[in-house]
Amino acid sequence: MNFSSKLLERAVDEVSQLPGIGKRTALRLVLHLLNRPPSQTEQLTTSLLQLVQNIKFCKNCHNISDTEICEICANPRRDAETVCVVEDIRDVMAIENTAQFNGHYHVLGGKISPIEGIGPQHLHIDSLVEKVKTDSIKELIFALSSTIEGDTTNFYIFKKLQGIDIKITTIARGISVGDELEYADEVTLGRSILHRIPFENSLKR
Amino acid sequence: MNFSSKLLERAVDEVSQLPGIGKRTALRLVLHLLNRPPSQTEQLTTSLLQLVQNIKFCKNCHNISDTEICEICANPRRDAETVCVVEDIRDVMAIENTAQFNGHYHVLGGKISPIEGIGPQHLHIDSLVEKVKTDSIKELIFALSSTIEGDTTNFYIFKKLQGIDIKITTIARGISVGDELEYADEVTLGRSILHRIPFENSLKR
Repeated sequence: MNFSSKLLERAVDEVSQLPGIGKRTALRLVLHLLNRPPSQTEQLTTSLLQLVQNIKFCKNCHNISDTEICEICANPRRDAETVCVVEDIRDVMAIENTAQFNGHYHVLGGKISPIEGIGPQHLHIDSLVEKVKTDSIKELIFALSSTIEGDTTNFYIFKKLQGIDIKITTIARGISVGDELEYADEVTLGRSILHRIPFENSLKR
Repeated sequence: MNFSSKLLERAVDEVSQLPGIGKRTALRLVLHLLNRPPSQTEQLTTSLLQLVQNIKFCKNCHNISDTEICEICANPRRDAETVCVVEDIRDVMAIENTAQFNGHYHVLGGKISPIEGIGPQHLHIDSLVEKVKTDSIKELIFALSSTIEGDTTNFYIFKKLQGIDIKITTIARGISVGDELEYADEVTLGRSILHRIPFENSLKR
């Protein structure tokens, strides 16, 4: 691209380094910034800087937090004996949005993926095992992606915890609410038949 | 969305105010910033701040520029007697990329659009008329979008310049290079027949 301004070129270069944003989109975004008062861009950049400079990760569950211990772990009304294991903080947000879970979380920071060079040592697995051994945790809920990497990670943690007296569960896989049977894939449909539940239970909300 | 961090929430709020970026995309982008060193985010925010605080618009053509007069207007090897009228600076970049034009530009800053509340007074039309009257411009090339708004703007400027001895042209409309005739719309195909050119001319590049 043929920029008539070095300032513009540098800004577009920086913005286009963000994931999923090409040069054209970056240019559109940057020109939008020029069309609004500079004070708004100052607000934007201040909020980003404050975030990257001041953000903390909860010492207990590795969730993103403004404090040493996150709001969820610090909340005495939440059940510390049930821990939901998730990949990243987006999953925490997704589960929190359902308002169906009142326990604690443990954020692994990803899943085991040899292709991407991510091994167990890159994830917060050791701290999870440690927590299970020292804290009084009764149930661990695996809520990872239903992919080979997710299953591998589940199995790795499961093996690590063998011999320890703890209930380990995984979230149910099945037909999405509102989906039609004929469009469901075979594996999901098969699992949903295999793990069928008493009809009375399906009436609970 | 259920954020566990006010810093994160504020950053996502700010980013999601950008055009075409929703809350989910904003969250993805902001989390990406947390995955790289803070210094990279500092580079990003510095480049954006420098842009909005220091950018200038060329006094002559209203193109974006680091200096009072943009590189194009300041270049003595460019033909100041031919001025290409465009909507915004992206069009300048697009035409510069073709390397087919060696004249000056005049950036209107938009096009007349009553629906969006943009009238002639919001555009750099007066300065264009002034320039035509005082400078020795021989040809004005209209290179606006081929839409009702673009045509209206062309016609408005054309009327404003009546009585002034200047050649006014508009860029050719026709079948795109590489396009098949059967898929062209009727209006474009009709215009390309109406404004047909001598075959020898089409051999020039």
